[in-house]
Amino acid sequence: MPWIQREFSIGARKRGFHLVTSEVVSKIPELSKIRCGLLHLFIKHTSASITLNENADPSVREDMERHFNLAAPENATYYTHDTEGSDDMPAHIKSSLLGASLVIPITDGRLNLGTWQGIYLCEHRDYGGNRNIVATIAGE
Amino acid sequence: MPWIQREFSIGARKRGFHLVTSEVVSKIPELSKIRCGLLHLFIKHTSASITLNENADPSVREDMERHFNLAAPENATYYTHDTEGSDDMPAHIKSSLLGASLVIPITDGRLNLGTWQGIYLCEHRDYGGNRNIVATIAGE
Amino acid sequence: MPWIQREFSIGARKRGFHLVTSEVVSKIPELSKIRCGLLHLFIKHTSASITLNENADPSVREDMERHFNLAAPENATYYTHDTEGSDDMPAHIKSSLLGASLVIPITDGRLNLGTWQGIYLCEHRDYGGNRNIVATIAGE
Repeated sequence: MPWIQREFSIGARKRGFHLVTSEVVSKIPELSKIRCGLLHLFIKHTSASITLNENADPSVREDMERHFNLAAPENATYYTHDTEGSDDMPAHIKSSLLGASLVIPITDGRLNLGTWQGIYLCEHRDYGGNRNIVATIAGE
Repeated sequence: MPWIQREFSIGARKRGFHLVTSEVVSKIPELSKIRCGLLHLFIKHTSASITLNENADPSVREDMERHFNLAAPENATYYTHDTEGSDDMPAHIKSSLLGASLVIPITDGRLNLGTWQGIYLCEHRDYGGNRNIVATIAGE
Repeated sequence: MPWIQREFSIGARKRGFHLVTSEVVSKIPELSKIRCGLLHLFIKHTSASITLNENADPSVREDMERHFNLAAPENATYYTHDTEGSDDMPAHIKSSLLGASLVIPITDGRLNLGTWQGIYLCEHRDYGGNRNIVATIAGE
């Protein structure tokens, strides 16, 4: 089985945490041919991130947004990088806290996620626009 | 060398940070046959996480627990997701802060960890029960 | 294409966030031969970390250092692990927050990073010394 790589765009979302499992999986149909392997997802930005979290109750995503807005506040007095707007430096901090990539096991043609795990796109800018993702699949 | 994948359970731990390097390695004896490769560990939950940290002094694990309890407090006034108990939403936040997976190099049949690095299972619920882990090994 | 692994040292940096993309890439010339694959970087320490963030304005790195010094302060009253200095326990916390490894896609012989993404070495100790990194390349 060769290595597979696909680069695609995810449509602009408003600032916040968004469940995108189905949208991401739909972009990589080759998943179904892998018996055992790994999917690597990589977001090519420094003001958005991807993480795994609860896929059921939307209130988790809302609480996450509120929490990280407090943990990395806008207009902190110690920021010197502020020319791109008050949402910019907090976005960089959140990006490193949550991370730009995920690695998920593939088993029998499917992502081997837990029952409650879903893929979140975390948009940290007020107007972030489309976000580019590289998906790399390796396995057999 | 084919890809290897094992799914196993780690026994219930109390809330906190726990050193589990030996227990994890004992579940994947195929490690010893890999000259050069990677181990991917994946915890299939959204209220527990895995990370690497100091493997010697237990006080590091205790301080980590105290720190993350302050960083993601129980009963924050901005939480709306609270029907599963006061430890639930903080557990989701910690899960994304610390992450659900680790990738560790394998060299000459062993995990190529630094002298002081060990694998932590981070249990964020008061009664989380057993935790399921998928280990994927690739290499040659 | 065989798996490739290189272990190397990065020269001592002062405490803070440092852009090291060029230095890291120069240590793994085999990158140029990979059409499609992944680079795994792993720092073998529990008081330094690696992350991706903005590669242009140095003020981002300075603000990151100030932010994480507040998020994981020195001399917190709840620390019990303090025999190695006031910068030690915060360094362990930052290490788990930011992470010990990165996985980056390789496309046509180059790291497939976003325009603004660079590799940061995050030195959390006042005098951390050289830092050891294992780079593993897989692909075709």
